[in-house]
Amino acid sequence: MKKKNKKVNAAILIIGDEILSGRTQESNVSFISKWLNDSCGIIVEEVRVIPDIEKKIIKNILELHKNFNYVFTTGGIGPTHDDITAQSISKAFKVKYGYNDKAYKILEKYYGKKNFNDGRKKMAKMPKNSSLILNPSSAAPGFKIRNVLSLPGVPSILKSMIENCRTYLKGGKKKLSLTLNTQTVESNISKELGKIQKQFFDVSIGSYPFFRLGKVGVSIVIRSSNKLKLKKCEKKIKDLLRLKKIKFFKYNLAA
Amino acid sequence: MKKKNKKVNAAILIIGDEILSGRTQESNVSFISKWLNDSCGIIVEEVRVIPDIEKKIIKNILELHKNFNYVFTTGGIGPTHDDITAQSISKAFKVKYGYNDKAYKILEKYYGKKNFNDGRKKMAKMPKNSSLILNPSSAAPGFKIRNVLSLPGVPSILKSMIENCRTYLKGGKKKLSLTLNTQTVESNISKELGKIQKQFFDVSIGSYPFFRLGKVGVSIVIRSSNKLKLKKCEKKIKDLLRLKKIKFFKYNLAA
Repeated sequence: MKKKNKKVNAAILIIGDEILSGRTQESNVSFISKWLNDSCGIIVEEVRVIPDIEKKIIKNILELHKNFNYVFTTGGIGPTHDDITAQSISKAFKVKYGYNDKAYKILEKYYGKKNFNDGRKKMAKMPKNSSLILNPSSAAPGFKIRNVLSLPGVPSILKSMIENCRTYLKGGKKKLSLTLNTQTVESNISKELGKIQKQFFDVSIGSYPFFRLGKVGVSIVIRSSNKLKLKKCEKKIKDLLRLKKIKFFKYNLAA
Repeated sequence: MKKKNKKVNAAILIIGDEILSGRTQESNVSFISKWLNDSCGIIVEEVRVIPDIEKKIIKNILELHKNFNYVFTTGGIGPTHDDITAQSISKAFKVKYGYNDKAYKILEKYYGKKNFNDGRKKMAKMPKNSSLILNPSSAAPGFKIRNVLSLPGVPSILKSMIENCRTYLKGGKKKLSLTLNTQTVESNISKELGKIQKQFFDVSIGSYPFFRLGKVGVSIVIRSSNKLKLKKCEKKIKDLLRLKKIKFFKYNLAA
């Protein structure tokens, strides 16, 4: 499953009422997805957002744990009563939930013995035999058990911790992508793009209309793990655009 | 299931590689969730993001259709080859996929007979016996079949169409919420908040740390369908904050 030239995938499970209610705009998915693909060659293939409800967390952890190489969770590992991710994952995997000695020491040192109250102590509790994901910004560590990695929901803290996940990941082949931004509408090129797609089974061509500064356009995004095929497909699409006298510019190449 | 005082729930299924890859920041969830709760009394209880792959769309449509009162899909109903939401939903429900006469006429009129090419015609295809969700900004309609409502992914177009979903929805009791923004850290109040939560089983208390302009704070969000309980719980929390000499201000009351 984990050889360099194989596809390695992941799912992200976002745990939090505040995202579902629309109160908070989710922003961790795009960060985690980009980091996993660009730094580790791991492709995110599903995202779920669920409420802080124990039985829902358990059900989703078990489903995703079984169907993906890795599962990242965000949210629900803080000090308050609504932070139930660690307990719920313990129950999902039928392991004990309790203090992790190393996490306890990190937090006790960070807060000082006098200020190390019950809420803060709670953040040292996790599934037994978890490995820690160290937190350089606010001390409270995330944890890794089996193929599940649990991170906090606050974007700035999550970002500071992501590099500490790398040690637990074995990646695959990176997905490369490039974008052609065109001055046209989708329906002008949809038929021909469909034909090109059929010629490249290991390249995916996505087409995304945009409105910017009062102008309409289409971003054509070409993705593949095979650089040569990506280039060949790019050439075909450029030929099409030139033939149709459609202006375009290349946006980037993550290589 | 659909009486005014009952809970009515929904799931959102976001179909699109561009969200999973991190290329595009998702922004429809918070808009749809707020609209459903505030305008219709429908609570979003799960969100999933999946790629443009037929068998994944079918699997997720069937699961969510069964487990929630309504399912909203976004994305994949445009003119290009990667827009496969309508075909996939047809297959999920084992109904024919083909032209909807009314949608065909709308699009033909919008584009004019001469410019009504194959890509544009494709947008008139949907599961047989769907009802239309009219699109006042770019003509191509969404559709409703069983308890599934399919909308486009482009946020400005989706926003222009959302009111046209209302006719297909029967709501329940609205969830009310209010926010107390406090100048403290979570671990200062976590124990007491947990105790208050235990006294109110039909109120949910969420606690969300924030960093703003270099200051830390905690937003305490209180949610309930019962206004009286919400107020009682608010009072308890305010008493706690005053007792602990924590500054706070009330943020809003969606009533």
